[in-house]
Amino acid sequence: MSCSMPRPDLDAIEKLLTRLSLREKVGQLNQRLYGWDCVRRTAVGYELTEAFHVEAERWGGIGALYGALRADAWSGRDWRTGVVPEARAEVAAMIVDATRTHSRHGIGPLLVEEAPHGHQALGGPSFPVNLNVGSSWDPQLYAECSAAVADGLRAAGIHLALVSSLDLLRDPRWGRSEECFGEDPLLSAELTTALVTGMQGANRSRLHAGAGAGVVLKHFAAQGEGVGGRNGQSAIIGPRDLAELHLPAARAGVAAGALGVMAAYNDVDGVPCCSSPALLTGLLRDDWAFDGLVMADGKAIDRLALMTGSLRRAAEVALRAGVDLSLWDTAFTLLEEAVEQDPRLLSAIDRACRRVLTVKAHFGLLDALMARPEPVNHSPAQAIELSRRMAARSLILLANDAAALPLRLPVAGGPRPRWVVVGPNADSTTAMLGDYVPPLRPQDQLSVLDALRAAAGGRVDVVHATERSDDIAGAVASADLVLCVLGGTSHRTYADEFADNGAALSGGTVATSGEGVDVADLALPGEQDQLVRLVRRATRGTVVSVVIAGRPHVLTGVLEASDATLLAWYPGPYGAPEIVRVLVGDAEPAGRLPVTLPASAGAVPVRYNDRQSAVAVYADAPEPVLRPFGFGLSYRAPTILAVRAEHLPGDDDVRVEVDVANPHDADVADVVKIFGHRTGGDTWPRECELLGFRRVSVPARDSVTVPFDLAGGRVFADTGPQAVTTISVGASGPGTTPGPACIVRRR
Amino acid sequence: MSCSMPRPDLDAIEKLLTRLSLREKVGQLNQRLYGWDCVRRTAVGYELTEAFHVEAERWGGIGALYGALRADAWSGRDWRTGVVPEARAEVAAMIVDATRTHSRHGIGPLLVEEAPHGHQALGGPSFPVNLNVGSSWDPQLYAECSAAVADGLRAAGIHLALVSSLDLLRDPRWGRSEECFGEDPLLSAELTTALVTGMQGANRSRLHAGAGAGVVLKHFAAQGEGVGGRNGQSAIIGPRDLAELHLPAARAGVAAGALGVMAAYNDVDGVPCCSSPALLTGLLRDDWAFDGLVMADGKAIDRLALMTGSLRRAAEVALRAGVDLSLWDTAFTLLEEAVEQDPRLLSAIDRACRRVLTVKAHFGLLDALMARPEPVNHSPAQAIELSRRMAARSLILLANDAAALPLRLPVAGGPRPRWVVVGPNADSTTAMLGDYVPPLRPQDQLSVLDALRAAAGGRVDVVHATERSDDIAGAVASADLVLCVLGGTSHRTYADEFADNGAALSGGTVATSGEGVDVADLALPGEQDQLVRLVRRATRGTVVSVVIAGRPHVLTGVLEASDATLLAWYPGPYGAPEIVRVLVGDAEPAGRLPVTLPASAGAVPVRYNDRQSAVAVYADAPEPVLRPFGFGLSYRAPTILAVRAEHLPGDDDVRVEVDVANPHDADVADVVKIFGHRTGGDTWPRECELLGFRRVSVPARDSVTVPFDLAGGRVFADTGPQAVTTISVGASGPGTTPGPACIVRRR
Repeated sequence: MSCSMPRPDLDAIEKLLTRLSLREKVGQLNQRLYGWDCVRRTAVGYELTEAFHVEAERWGGIGALYGALRADAWSGRDWRTGVVPEARAEVAAMIVDATRTHSRHGIGPLLVEEAPHGHQALGGPSFPVNLNVGSSWDPQLYAECSAAVADGLRAAGIHLALVSSLDLLRDPRWGRSEECFGEDPLLSAELTTALVTGMQGANRSRLHAGAGAGVVLKHFAAQGEGVGGRNGQSAIIGPRDLAELHLPAARAGVAAGALGVMAAYNDVDGVPCCSSPALLTGLLRDDWAFDGLVMADGKAIDRLALMTGSLRRAAEVALRAGVDLSLWDTAFTLLEEAVEQDPRLLSAIDRACRRVLTVKAHFGLLDALMARPEPVNHSPAQAIELSRRMAARSLILLANDAAALPLRLPVAGGPRPRWVVVGPNADSTTAMLGDYVPPLRPQDQLSVLDALRAAAGGRVDVVHATERSDDIAGAVASADLVLCVLGGTSHRTYADEFADNGAALSGGTVATSGEGVDVADLALPGEQDQLVRLVRRATRGTVVSVVIAGRPHVLTGVLEASDATLLAWYPGPYGAPEIVRVLVGDAEPAGRLPVTLPASAGAVPVRYNDRQSAVAVYADAPEPVLRPFGFGLSYRAPTILAVRAEHLPGDDDVRVEVDVANPHDADVADVVKIFGHRTGGDTWPRECELLGFRRVSVPARDSVTVPFDLAGGRVFADTGPQAVTTISVGASGPGTTPGPACIVRRR
Repeated sequence: MSCSMPRPDLDAIEKLLTRLSLREKVGQLNQRLYGWDCVRRTAVGYELTEAFHVEAERWGGIGALYGALRADAWSGRDWRTGVVPEARAEVAAMIVDATRTHSRHGIGPLLVEEAPHGHQALGGPSFPVNLNVGSSWDPQLYAECSAAVADGLRAAGIHLALVSSLDLLRDPRWGRSEECFGEDPLLSAELTTALVTGMQGANRSRLHAGAGAGVVLKHFAAQGEGVGGRNGQSAIIGPRDLAELHLPAARAGVAAGALGVMAAYNDVDGVPCCSSPALLTGLLRDDWAFDGLVMADGKAIDRLALMTGSLRRAAEVALRAGVDLSLWDTAFTLLEEAVEQDPRLLSAIDRACRRVLTVKAHFGLLDALMARPEPVNHSPAQAIELSRRMAARSLILLANDAAALPLRLPVAGGPRPRWVVVGPNADSTTAMLGDYVPPLRPQDQLSVLDALRAAAGGRVDVVHATERSDDIAGAVASADLVLCVLGGTSHRTYADEFADNGAALSGGTVATSGEGVDVADLALPGEQDQLVRLVRRATRGTVVSVVIAGRPHVLTGVLEASDATLLAWYPGPYGAPEIVRVLVGDAEPAGRLPVTLPASAGAVPVRYNDRQSAVAVYADAPEPVLRPFGFGLSYRAPTILAVRAEHLPGDDDVRVEVDVANPHDADVADVVKIFGHRTGGDTWPRECELLGFRRVSVPARDSVTVPFDLAGGRVFADTGPQAVTTISVGASGPGTTPGPACIVRRR
């Protein structure tokens, strides 16, 4: 049954608030349990654990429950012990009903799940990681993917999805690089808008209709700016860089109506995000009029005790700064005694409680009867199709010397060429998935090798050579083609060890990226550079490399040794056939880099939109960029003919038009991006800034004009009356060659 | 003749200002010429060039002249073409007299010279680079060195010395690392105070007595914070880190009376230092009451045109922000026409001119007769002795396994052991010197090899093996000792190419560090890691490495392959015998690291005083610190017994006492350092902060108590009433083992 949901009745919430005891209020601000510990699978179904009942009894209800359906190595839940897809809604309803029973007021709990790229529960389905979403440059497709994920959550009775979307990839040593849309604020902002509108509907219309799920945007703010790419460490940036780079996505997500924002672990210039009144109240509430809830990252408030000297003071500063809902902390349980010591805290507790209750009202959790809607838009099968489409849209062709790609599959019955497949990711299914994924059923897992064999259909002699068992040089000597499938993995095994927030403990994992796996050396893990060099020397066949990774590695050696290189960020479980389709020419490589690819491990960070170019700076690495932001080859690409800019009537807004021609006999598609470089202000201009982008299709032998209407504040931001902005189509960032450009002056 | 100098007569300066034409005023703000182009050496002496006269005629005088005595590869001046030491005063007087002749008011020019570690003129003398000064932890000795340099400048008729002292070494990839005192704000502040009081006297007493020289402190501000260690690039830090790390040295230098501050190339969070009213006016003038002049770095104002869109607007924003004196720019010459367009600029021109004239008054340049003082304190020979002492005080013993050092020189007449010396710096004299040095006479140059041979005095068979001509493995096989002299060089040859500000153009230099030579890879240049590994394998003798470098390289491999390793930052021309004295045990290794030594090239930056430790963060480099800040072995070291802290009467000030014992039969010396770690505040505490340090000597078999009186604002800064500070003696930064500690609470 789907049903429409009334908007929160604020008067009713105020009345409810007056009826709650202090303990009940504090309970609403807590989300202490690991959800998977609350549900036990039995021979005949599922039951709630003692731990759950004790907690709900203690507080007369609970604020929120995290991860009741989560299944992965950290939770320890798998297909044998976790909640199967068919039982999700039943389990969720059981939790809600039981919580209501513990509540004098019948208040249900917010059910919160990880859904950074699909729901991290058995049956997912999983989607490509965010770096792929960034590489697609396709907010429309991402909105539909997000809607499909939200449909699955809603069908399961889940209210809030935790989704990384605010972090920028500013240093590729960071293990969470894969969770970023890329290094650019505009691209991230547009995709964050797509996420929120996809999950919640425009202006929360899906929520109001009883569909979709609420989004908690993480992480606020500047978590990608940690010194040295170190997870959760200080972002030492100043207010201007913070505002220009790290806030636009959050602001866009708030404007789109996101129900939640997660305060990040890191500090910004010394002030932890979880205790920052400037961020959580000044910006979010006062400036942006955010009306949702602020959740702290897992155990982030407890960590504050290292600063405050005590857990209770940690809870006080976090609450006062603007945190409404805690995750796993002990500290927030101490608010009850804290308010007894300092009654002035009560108004802050009321404020936070009001916000939690208001979000609950969106899901009928304050009412007697919970709606149990069913999927409205996307079936699981449709979600899988969307995951596949996103994977297909985000594969990036980095090099294609002498048109080595696409590969030509021979006709059936003719001579069978010998294709040798090598490399650590050739037969890996786990390396396709990324971090924050549930365990897949075996039948859902497909490697590049599997997909290649399927595509070859017996017309090619596909040989898999592994370094463990084979003499690689001998195996590739007579190959017509060697396919090196390289990269990293964010796979966690059930034998791994984890920190108390689920991050991998380095040393205890096979993973080479993902949360908790920051690296100092950006080379491909292990001996992969040596492997591809060995292959190059040992064969006279074509050498094609496919890199499947979660962070920008240094691929200089791979490109030198390969005739063509295709880059896939973890493309998800349906990605392998898409990689093969691109390799054999059944599809175009449609992805474009959302991040600068470094040429040298020491020359980091390199970003296209820094204020000063890093090119020619390092004596030992004068060209630190291997491939620039926005880069990606096509088999058949349109041609940018010209770019024009003119003022729109009446103000400083500007219309930019880009003429794009297709010289080919087939339709082609591309991402048209326009960049700006400003002079005439009082701050040092960035090398280059993305001002707009659009995926366009151009019919065969035809041309189109792509218009962009840009606000004057965007074109001339931060400049004076003499402002001049150069608008270019080829990026003017480090390592790029100039394309057509034009100039526009402030009126 | 030495004479006392009246303090500037401000009324007279105001009157003089009213008599200057606009052009004359603008002339006072310019320092356009390369000084070496103004002086021509002839067969019989020196003469001024046409270029000089044209400039002085144009402006009716000139504001300042940079580098008239400079001799180095960039200026192209050498012992054949430059100004010899004996002629310095004569040439300076000629310039002053000629400038006065061009001036209707008889105003002389400020003569400005580079003196970052000794005067960069023929005959210097040169001193160890600033990293050595930091490693000495000896402000008293540095003050005396600075006084000696100032004496030489004053004797030469020079008024202002440009000295790097404000830059912190926050990323060792930066080419100018050698110009920093280290990574710590307190150490840098104390040494900056020593510099200013040494050169100018306490409260400018030497200047008022007609002695010493004025100091221009460079660079203001945060130049060491450039992204990725890139020279002059954006410092993206926020105001708290700026204030806590990068401003203390500048504030100390201003408080000590520095006559000048140089505005840096970089921007801070988008605003170039040269056009920052917040830095140059708000901080310097309004908050700190700075009364000297602000000089822009070379061509820095012209560079602003890339931001402003025009040179004239660049000049306007720099002037308005608070720049008083330009260096080599074209932009500031346009102020004349700028003020014609916008008369409101005139007051800013008057303000700058007033400051330049006030500084000139300190040197009698506004009066009819110029004083030509002679050295008062230090003869050149005494300066050389001080340079030697600083070199001796800054050598850092990094490792000494099984007491491989000191080496035992055999008695004369006994068997002669075979000592083989290898490595690129073994026979180098130029690598001893650093950047910003004049060419030395051959007889002033001494390599480690030379010094070792001299010390061995025939009792050892000292063999020099070079990779070019020898089979290293064969040469070291039968050695009793192999001395590997490794490292980098900041040497510029006269064949090098330079940027228009004198920085080396990368690619056109043999240098591996110094201005303009940033590197991405912190490994020792070339194949040095391989060399020392080869030596280790090829010999059964003792392997001792000496690293002579200008930046913290990754020395992990060197330490692994060596029995002992001694680190010398470029120690100057008198350093080689001091290195040998430490090697053979005639002197203690007295230096202590003023910077964290990284263990891994990718794990940078690593600083002891970051807010979060980098240890155990990187999965592939869990121990990123090879040697911590403050580290340095001694042959005989005292023992720290205990540390106590108690409040001083009446306020939050704290007395810390450290008990130090000497178990040896000889006097020993060490640097006692106390660190603090604060909790109880609203900002994330730094891992560790240096609160105080002192060089102490402890008599044989005796003990001493070292007292530190610390202001409460330092002990409890930025914390609340519940503040607790842990005071430790062994640093608690990354990679350190805890020493004695105690706790002190805010009253």
